[in-house]
Amino acid sequence: MAVSALKNALEINGERLWDTLMASGQIGPGKSTGLSRLALSDADKQMRDVFVGWCREAGCTVSVDPFGNIFARRAGSDAGAKPVVIGSHLDTQIAGGKYDGVLGVLSGLEIIRTLNDLSIETKRPIEVASWTNEEGVRFQPPMLGAGAFAGIHDRAWVLSQTDPDGVAFGTELERIGYAGPEPHDPGDIDAYFELHIEQGPVLEEEGLQVGIVTGGFTSLGAEVEFHGENAHAGPTLMRDRKDALVGAAVLIAKVNEIGWEFAPKGRSTCARLEISPNRYGIIADRTVVTVDVRHPEAAEAEQMYRRALDVLPIIAKQANVEATVKKEWCFGGLSFDTDLVNLVRTVAAEMNVPHRHMLSAAGHDAYHVATVAPTVMIFTPCRGGITHNESEHIEPEYTVPGVNVLLNAVVRRANAR
Amino acid sequence: MAVSALKNALEINGERLWDTLMASGQIGPGKSTGLSRLALSDADKQMRDVFVGWCREAGCTVSVDPFGNIFARRAGSDAGAKPVVIGSHLDTQIAGGKYDGVLGVLSGLEIIRTLNDLSIETKRPIEVASWTNEEGVRFQPPMLGAGAFAGIHDRAWVLSQTDPDGVAFGTELERIGYAGPEPHDPGDIDAYFELHIEQGPVLEEEGLQVGIVTGGFTSLGAEVEFHGENAHAGPTLMRDRKDALVGAAVLIAKVNEIGWEFAPKGRSTCARLEISPNRYGIIADRTVVTVDVRHPEAAEAEQMYRRALDVLPIIAKQANVEATVKKEWCFGGLSFDTDLVNLVRTVAAEMNVPHRHMLSAAGHDAYHVATVAPTVMIFTPCRGGITHNESEHIEPEYTVPGVNVLLNAVVRRANAR
Repeated sequence: MAVSALKNALEINGERLWDTLMASGQIGPGKSTGLSRLALSDADKQMRDVFVGWCREAGCTVSVDPFGNIFARRAGSDAGAKPVVIGSHLDTQIAGGKYDGVLGVLSGLEIIRTLNDLSIETKRPIEVASWTNEEGVRFQPPMLGAGAFAGIHDRAWVLSQTDPDGVAFGTELERIGYAGPEPHDPGDIDAYFELHIEQGPVLEEEGLQVGIVTGGFTSLGAEVEFHGENAHAGPTLMRDRKDALVGAAVLIAKVNEIGWEFAPKGRSTCARLEISPNRYGIIADRTVVTVDVRHPEAAEAEQMYRRALDVLPIIAKQANVEATVKKEWCFGGLSFDTDLVNLVRTVAAEMNVPHRHMLSAAGHDAYHVATVAPTVMIFTPCRGGITHNESEHIEPEYTVPGVNVLLNAVVRRANAR
Repeated sequence: MAVSALKNALEINGERLWDTLMASGQIGPGKSTGLSRLALSDADKQMRDVFVGWCREAGCTVSVDPFGNIFARRAGSDAGAKPVVIGSHLDTQIAGGKYDGVLGVLSGLEIIRTLNDLSIETKRPIEVASWTNEEGVRFQPPMLGAGAFAGIHDRAWVLSQTDPDGVAFGTELERIGYAGPEPHDPGDIDAYFELHIEQGPVLEEEGLQVGIVTGGFTSLGAEVEFHGENAHAGPTLMRDRKDALVGAAVLIAKVNEIGWEFAPKGRSTCARLEISPNRYGIIADRTVVTVDVRHPEAAEAEQMYRRALDVLPIIAKQANVEATVKKEWCFGGLSFDTDLVNLVRTVAAEMNVPHRHMLSAAGHDAYHVATVAPTVMIFTPCRGGITHNESEHIEPEYTVPGVNVLLNAVVRRANAR
């Protein structure tokens, strides 16, 4: 069967994909309708075990690298050819949904199952990748497994990162049995595709089923520490206070204002705040605020970030505390591979799937993989654009057309010269 | 030996008091020079056991009430007379000093030892009271044991209060063996004296050794809850956010401003903030802020409090969240017993101990006891006025004169008709 003849005939089994998604949606239940499947938790192990089982049933060879990234490979006809990789992540937010991440991984699995059903052989191998700790909710930074794979992080540093209880990434990886022995050569990828729910309302509002992601917002982040002094909330005069929580509060309010000034494109968040001792009646002596600004244009993101840090000396003076930037990071600000963007657009057009170009405001494993291989992302709609929330929701008619586009694009790439 | 002849001769043994303080300062060590002896912790049990041992060695009869309050009684010559009680607390802040609370309890013990040494019999019994959970750092509200004793709190409610780990007050009380069988009749107190470090710099700055506390600041408090919604910090537009941490931050900054507007007499603090889920990349859906305003004049305190709560609708609108007042409390705003104030002033004057009247800005067990018995407090200086801090420090020359005044005042009251 010639590949050109497959157009519109090469369709995944939407019902089977949905059954698989529903099964994965049982593992690591959250408080209401969503999931709380934190990286390297027992629930993550259970999900990994189930996923590896499914991949083996589909005839794949499964390998695990030293960061717990899982690769399930369907062989190609050309034994020496580099694989086309489809990937995303199986971990979720602490109060997350059932589709963020897992949809991309299980779409890859469904593509392999479909090719098996139709006895289609591709020239290049096709691999499904599941990256460890994308969410960054248990271990920081986010996209830790993909970043380690791409050589962006030092191996020992990655393994030594700790969760809020002080447990190391490496320890948990060993504990759940996913500290793999098989490093994957980051240079050994022909092309990388990642399908993900949009995490925004644009596709749904515009009635589109595919977002072709041409690149990512520039995301800049920092941890700012305020040092004050413990004192009694009663007798201590206002003038004698060194209140680290006041410093943090003024910064959080300011960062929020900066987001509004750069809206609608810009956005800024302080999502995390450590407070010591955080007890009634005693003025806080130490706080740590996580600052996160994002903008599609790098220069604007940089300006937002500068604005946030420039107020630190003023805040420090006002709250009579010391302010220090402890950690800084940046991700995104990249453009995906033009050939792959064009390929996805061509396939979507040929298949009459309504689509548009867009940027990603969120971080994704694809950002790191893009540093070592040609990469593109496909977004599919989600209800109300709501994610990182237990009420995250998708429907087959939102999703299946995008997975079909992915299938066709992957097969075309896997058979290209 | 006639009591009138005792003036200036009736002096406590400062060295022994200091040895006792140094011994208690070893129990429940903090990170540096202070203590972290939280109510009903293992360290609190250890301190209680040591204290009870010392009291029995001094010939006292020890009883424990159902809230863990300890009463050590030295009999008087009149078997039917109500006791004069000297009390304070043995628990400390999480990063507290070695003197806040314990100084008052051990001064009481030293007074009994001194009377024993001199074979002085008083008409009324003298009791030393140690009240449970004064700091309010582990269980809220503060002064819980004294409040329960005075009948201000319902017994079942007190026992069901939980610490931040969800462990109940009653459970911990049983565990450390201080759920006593002997209720103490709150009506059965002739007079209550509490000696405490000042927790402010006034006495030290003015070179005085005794503050005669005529009453307390009015302290008003509330727990304010903000309800927002979890969402992804990247794709979520500013206009679509319901950020509970932004609501909390704006309130904390506002409460601080209110303190400055009412300074120097007024003061306001948000010392405690709960955040959910408090993780990188996910907008907070719930925060709880503890608001605490204090002013020597009740009307001004009330105005500060109103100002803080009046901005809630504005903040809620601004941060697109719901704001609810979950809990409100007030303490202080009281005047101590005029006869006891006059007695302490007379004794201090006769003994040539430099003194002044003052108000307490902090809450004290005495506030609750004052609702059931004539009460007065004596403040003694502490270095720099620093308390609720591991660097809290006192010297014998700061402290012993005040304890001598207490001794003489207590003996005079215990022998009065």
